[in-house]
Amino acid sequence: MSAEAPAPLLTPDYVRSVWQTMAEHVRPTVLVGSDALDAEVGVEVTLACEMFQHGGSFKYRAAYNLLSSVPHELIVTASSGNFGQAAALAAGQLGKACSVVMPNTSSRVKIDAVRRQGAIVELVDTATTSRMERVQELMEAHPAAFYASAFDDTRVVAGNSTLGREIVDGVPELDVIVAPVGGGGLISGIVTARDVLRSSVAVLGAEPALGNDAARSLQSGSLVANEAEPGTIADGARTLSLGSVTWPIVRGGVEDIVEVPEAAIAEAVRLLFRFANVKAEPTGALALAALLVRPERFVGWRVCCVVSGGNVDEEIYAAILRNEM
Amino acid sequence: MSAEAPAPLLTPDYVRSVWQTMAEHVRPTVLVGSDALDAEVGVEVTLACEMFQHGGSFKYRAAYNLLSSVPHELIVTASSGNFGQAAALAAGQLGKACSVVMPNTSSRVKIDAVRRQGAIVELVDTATTSRMERVQELMEAHPAAFYASAFDDTRVVAGNSTLGREIVDGVPELDVIVAPVGGGGLISGIVTARDVLRSSVAVLGAEPALGNDAARSLQSGSLVANEAEPGTIADGARTLSLGSVTWPIVRGGVEDIVEVPEAAIAEAVRLLFRFANVKAEPTGALALAALLVRPERFVGWRVCCVVSGGNVDEEIYAAILRNEM
Repeated sequence: MSAEAPAPLLTPDYVRSVWQTMAEHVRPTVLVGSDALDAEVGVEVTLACEMFQHGGSFKYRAAYNLLSSVPHELIVTASSGNFGQAAALAAGQLGKACSVVMPNTSSRVKIDAVRRQGAIVELVDTATTSRMERVQELMEAHPAAFYASAFDDTRVVAGNSTLGREIVDGVPELDVIVAPVGGGGLISGIVTARDVLRSSVAVLGAEPALGNDAARSLQSGSLVANEAEPGTIADGARTLSLGSVTWPIVRGGVEDIVEVPEAAIAEAVRLLFRFANVKAEPTGALALAALLVRPERFVGWRVCCVVSGGNVDEEIYAAILRNEM
Repeated sequence: MSAEAPAPLLTPDYVRSVWQTMAEHVRPTVLVGSDALDAEVGVEVTLACEMFQHGGSFKYRAAYNLLSSVPHELIVTASSGNFGQAAALAAGQLGKACSVVMPNTSSRVKIDAVRRQGAIVELVDTATTSRMERVQELMEAHPAAFYASAFDDTRVVAGNSTLGREIVDGVPELDVIVAPVGGGGLISGIVTARDVLRSSVAVLGAEPALGNDAARSLQSGSLVANEAEPGTIADGARTLSLGSVTWPIVRGGVEDIVEVPEAAIAEAVRLLFRFANVKAEPTGALALAALLVRPERFVGWRVCCVVSGGNVDEEIYAAILRNEM
């Protein structure tokens, strides 16, 4: 699909050019520290908060860079929510039309937000039809459309690298950055920025144990996939596998991927609420949850946890706060 | 009480000297915008977020400035929560002991947080004993202690003026700053900074209608008090009246005070959650609530709403999200 808009290579020159052009479009990440949170988890933590980014998650960094790089007037994408919202927002700003294929299990606030941005939502029952089957149908119906991958594109990785750059430049004496892993677009962007900046900071992933394809891939050395979309509360990580762009970057640049049980994700949402006054969506709490699951891994380290987004239904959030999830 | 530590006058020189010394102690406020929130309320809003301040509210600005200005080794204060937490934190940093008189209706997280900072919590049943009666008892028992007012002290106002300065300097083309009003320490700090900086921005207050003493004072031109501590969910505004320091500043510098019904406070908490990914405590949502109550007052204006803090019990917050409050 879309052979007419070939993606650039992730050279330092290209990455730095994206940093320059994106600077005026993205909101800087908000770096938050909390002595109370540090005391609770026993580690010195900085939170890189992306819930105040346009669209409420880091995804706008990727979406704007990708959509502004192609000439197409119609964009088709598939997303459990945040990339769809970001793509819809960027498309609107760039005067493009946008269709977003979303699982019918997607968070209601995310579906509403995509529609509010003026995009068309195509709900699919992922138990019977994969997102990509529906994308394929749409692309056949609209041959002039551009298919925007939510993660597996160098322009997505370069867009996300703007966040990695802000963290590496903005947090002094950092030992490790922990980022959530779904399709790998975010963590690949962080690895890319780290390498372009020649920083020695380690990059660790945090993945729901229910959908541990990336952890298994890294352990086995070859790309493996989940059999179906995992039913994790971390709806931003309901992906089948890493992609052909992100897998080599993850394999070459990510030190380890921590598998996080659902209970730890919910607990991390509560800790962020109580001790840091941060509203995180479950996917956004994955990185902190990795510290709860493997505390011995982080002793004595200065850690930056990426809070990737904040978009979560009131009902789900209230249930987590009340220990019902 | 405490005649031995006379408070300085709020001269521009004193205020500017506080700005200089406090710069290394406070965390800069986080200025957040949200297109979705703007669309929802019909006004261009910047949120000045103090929930990431030390102690989770703006009160640290006041507490640190006040406690570092006096030589006393023992601090006694009265607070429904946030000032107590901030005073306990600042006292610990400065090597001082601290006792905090709190109503037994205070938010549990606030009581826990004060204790976690190493201070002594003195709970009072405000239906039978006023906070100040208990303070008086403590001061008689400890004549060498310093009584720290949560709002009625020029050093408190000067500490809070650091926030006003950040807003005036940081938000371009601003027409009005809206701030919650309890004892008036915060809004007096904002007025003071506005005047020292010779800015023409208007300053408006937002007060719970259940405890509308400041609004009535401003309307009548003389200081009036509530008969008892108001039972508003905005627990940071459960004060009897403005004070002798804050009332003249409010009378001279605040354009208007909007009275906010309880339902609008809860709605503003929900809007901040849904459209801005901001976790605000009810008192922190008062300023946005004022826009909901009096939308016509703000049409065409660029508004900065002060989100004064984020400390709220999980149970209360979940109930607000579920429309149970």
